[in-house]
Amino acid sequence: MSEMKENVIIGIDLGGTGIKIGIVNAEYEILAQTTIPTHGERPFEQVIADMGLAAKKLLEESGYEVNDCLGIGVGSPGTIDSKNGVVLYSNNIRWDNVPLAEELYKYLAVPIYVNNDANCAALGETVKGAAKGCDSAVFLTLGTGVGGGVVINGRIFEGGHPGGAELGHIRISSEGRKCTCGREDCLEAYASATALIDDARTMVQRFPGSMLWQLCGRDTDLMNAKMPFDAAEAGDPCGQALVERYIQYLADGITDLANIFRPDIIVLGGGICAQGEKLTGPLNRYLNDNCFGASVSYVPKVVTAQNGNGAGIIGAAALVGTALRTAM
Amino acid sequence: MSEMKENVIIGIDLGGTGIKIGIVNAEYEILAQTTIPTHGERPFEQVIADMGLAAKKLLEESGYEVNDCLGIGVGSPGTIDSKNGVVLYSNNIRWDNVPLAEELYKYLAVPIYVNNDANCAALGETVKGAAKGCDSAVFLTLGTGVGGGVVINGRIFEGGHPGGAELGHIRISSEGRKCTCGREDCLEAYASATALIDDARTMVQRFPGSMLWQLCGRDTDLMNAKMPFDAAEAGDPCGQALVERYIQYLADGITDLANIFRPDIIVLGGGICAQGEKLTGPLNRYLNDNCFGASVSYVPKVVTAQNGNGAGIIGAAALVGTALRTAM
Repeated sequence: MSEMKENVIIGIDLGGTGIKIGIVNAEYEILAQTTIPTHGERPFEQVIADMGLAAKKLLEESGYEVNDCLGIGVGSPGTIDSKNGVVLYSNNIRWDNVPLAEELYKYLAVPIYVNNDANCAALGETVKGAAKGCDSAVFLTLGTGVGGGVVINGRIFEGGHPGGAELGHIRISSEGRKCTCGREDCLEAYASATALIDDARTMVQRFPGSMLWQLCGRDTDLMNAKMPFDAAEAGDPCGQALVERYIQYLADGITDLANIFRPDIIVLGGGICAQGEKLTGPLNRYLNDNCFGASVSYVPKVVTAQNGNGAGIIGAAALVGTALRTAM
Repeated sequence: MSEMKENVIIGIDLGGTGIKIGIVNAEYEILAQTTIPTHGERPFEQVIADMGLAAKKLLEESGYEVNDCLGIGVGSPGTIDSKNGVVLYSNNIRWDNVPLAEELYKYLAVPIYVNNDANCAALGETVKGAAKGCDSAVFLTLGTGVGGGVVINGRIFEGGHPGGAELGHIRISSEGRKCTCGREDCLEAYASATALIDDARTMVQRFPGSMLWQLCGRDTDLMNAKMPFDAAEAGDPCGQALVERYIQYLADGITDLANIFRPDIIVLGGGICAQGEKLTGPLNRYLNDNCFGASVSYVPKVVTAQNGNGAGIIGAAALVGTALRTAM
C-alpha cells in the first residue's frame, strides 16, 4: 500500500517563447517548477507533447504520481473556449482552434482546465496574492499591451462569448493614437508600458535637456518604463509630466472598469507595478473622487499584484482549485 | 373548490413621477395595468403603501387572488441591493436605504424581487423582445442620460457590489465635456438624447441657415432628438453632421462594451431608437470593423428594443420569471 501523499495541482503558463510548468500544493505554494521552450512554429501536437511529457516528468521527479494530481490548469494567450479547453485563436503562438485540453489529456489523464492567461492571473491574485479572500477583482496587466481579467463571485468572468473581458481595448481618449487592435484610442495605446516608453522617447527628442536623456544612455532604444518614474522622483520636469499623464490615462481606464464591474479590488500587474504607492496613491485618490456615485457606493481600492514570477503558474493552478470549489 | 386560474406576475416600474403597475402572464403579455403618482417627497412607507394597495386592487379587479400571483418584480431607479430588496440610493426619488421588498410584502405576501430599472429593461428584452432567446445581452437606454443593463447566462450581471454596470459612465473621448456624474467625457455626455439635443442647439446657433432652425420653430428650447435625424434625412448638412457624429460616439461606447461583455446581442432603448436601421446600420458596420478580434471572434449584433411602453413592467416581471427558472 502506497504512502498517502498530499494532493497537488499542475499549473502551466503557456507563453510565446517559453512554457512554465509548476506543481503547487493546496496553499498554492510552488513546490517545483521548470521551463521549456515553446517553439510554437511546430505542429501543435508536438508543442503539447513536450508540455505533457515535461509536466509528467516534473511530477515524478518531485515524488508524486499521476494519482496525486488533482488536475492541470493551463493559462494561454489568446481567445479561449474554456468550456471545451480549446485555444480558438492566439496571435502569440499562431494557434487556431487547437484542442489543448484534449491533446494534453493523452499525456496526463487528469481534469484539465484552460483559460486566457490574464484571466488566470486575475484568479491567481484572489487565491494567493493581493486580492486573497476577495470575491470579485479586476486585474490589469501593464506590459507590452494591457491585458485584463475579471473575477466575479470567485469565478472568472468571461462575458457572453469567448474573447470577452478585453479590458485593454476600451476607448479612453480622442487623441487619435492607433492601437495594436486596429482601433484608435484604446486604453492599451496609452497605459501599456510600451505607450509610456514611446511617450518618453518623444519627450526626450523634444527636450534633450531632460534627465531622461542621461538615464537612457543617450540611446532612446534603451529607454524603459522605469526611467520616467526615476526621472520624476529626481525632480526632472519631463519625467514628472510623463508620469502624471500616464497615471491620468490609467486612472481613466480604471474608473471605467470600476463603474462597470464595481469589484472588491483592482489589481495592477506588470513591471510598472514595482512603483507601488507612487502609482497606486494617485490612482486611488482619483478613483475616490471620480467613481460613479462615490459618496454613496462602494469604491474599490487599487493595489499592485503580489504573485510576481509565480503568477502564471499560480493563476493556471487556480483554475483547478476554483473548479473543485464550485463543483460542490 | 375554486376554479384553477393561470399564474400571473406583477411587474412594477417605479419612476420619479409615476409608478406603473402591470399584471403579466407566463408569456409576459400585459393583462392589466395602472399608473399611480409617486409623490416621492412623502415618507417611503406611504409611497410603498400606495404601491402595494394599487397592485392588490389591480390583481383583484382583474379576477386574480393573491395566491394566483407568483411574485412581484420591482424596477427602481438608483443603486439597489438586489439580494435584500433595498433601494440603497436613488437620486430620482430621493430614497436612501429604503427596504422596499420588506415594506411591500406587508401588502402582498408573495416573493418580491427588486433591481435597477435599466437592469430590468435588459432582462425584459431577453424574455420578450429584441433579445428573446439570447443568453447574454447588453442594453443601453438613450434618454436624458445613458442607462445600462447587462444579462449574462440569462441573469442580470450586477458586478461585485451594488452600483455596477453603470455603462453610461465610461469615458469615450477627451473633448472635456462635463458629465452629470461629475467626471468628464463619459458616454452619457455624448450619446444621451440630451447630448444630441445640446449639440443640435449649438449647431443651429452657429448655422442658423440649417433646416434645424425651421424644424424647431426658431426656438431652440423646442429642439428634440428626432429633429437632427429628420434634417439629415432631408439632406441638411448640419443634420447629417450631427447624426454622423452622434452615431460615432455611440459606436465607440458600444464597441467598448462588446469588447468587455462579448454578448449575444446589444439592444438600444429610448426614443432615439425609433430611427431603427438609420441608427443600427452604421453601428453594426462600425462594430464589425472595430470590435476586438472581429475576424476571429463572435461580433454581437446591435438592434433596437421592442418592449416599448411595456418595457418597465415586463422587465420588472422578468425578475420573478428568472428567479423561478434559476431556482430549479
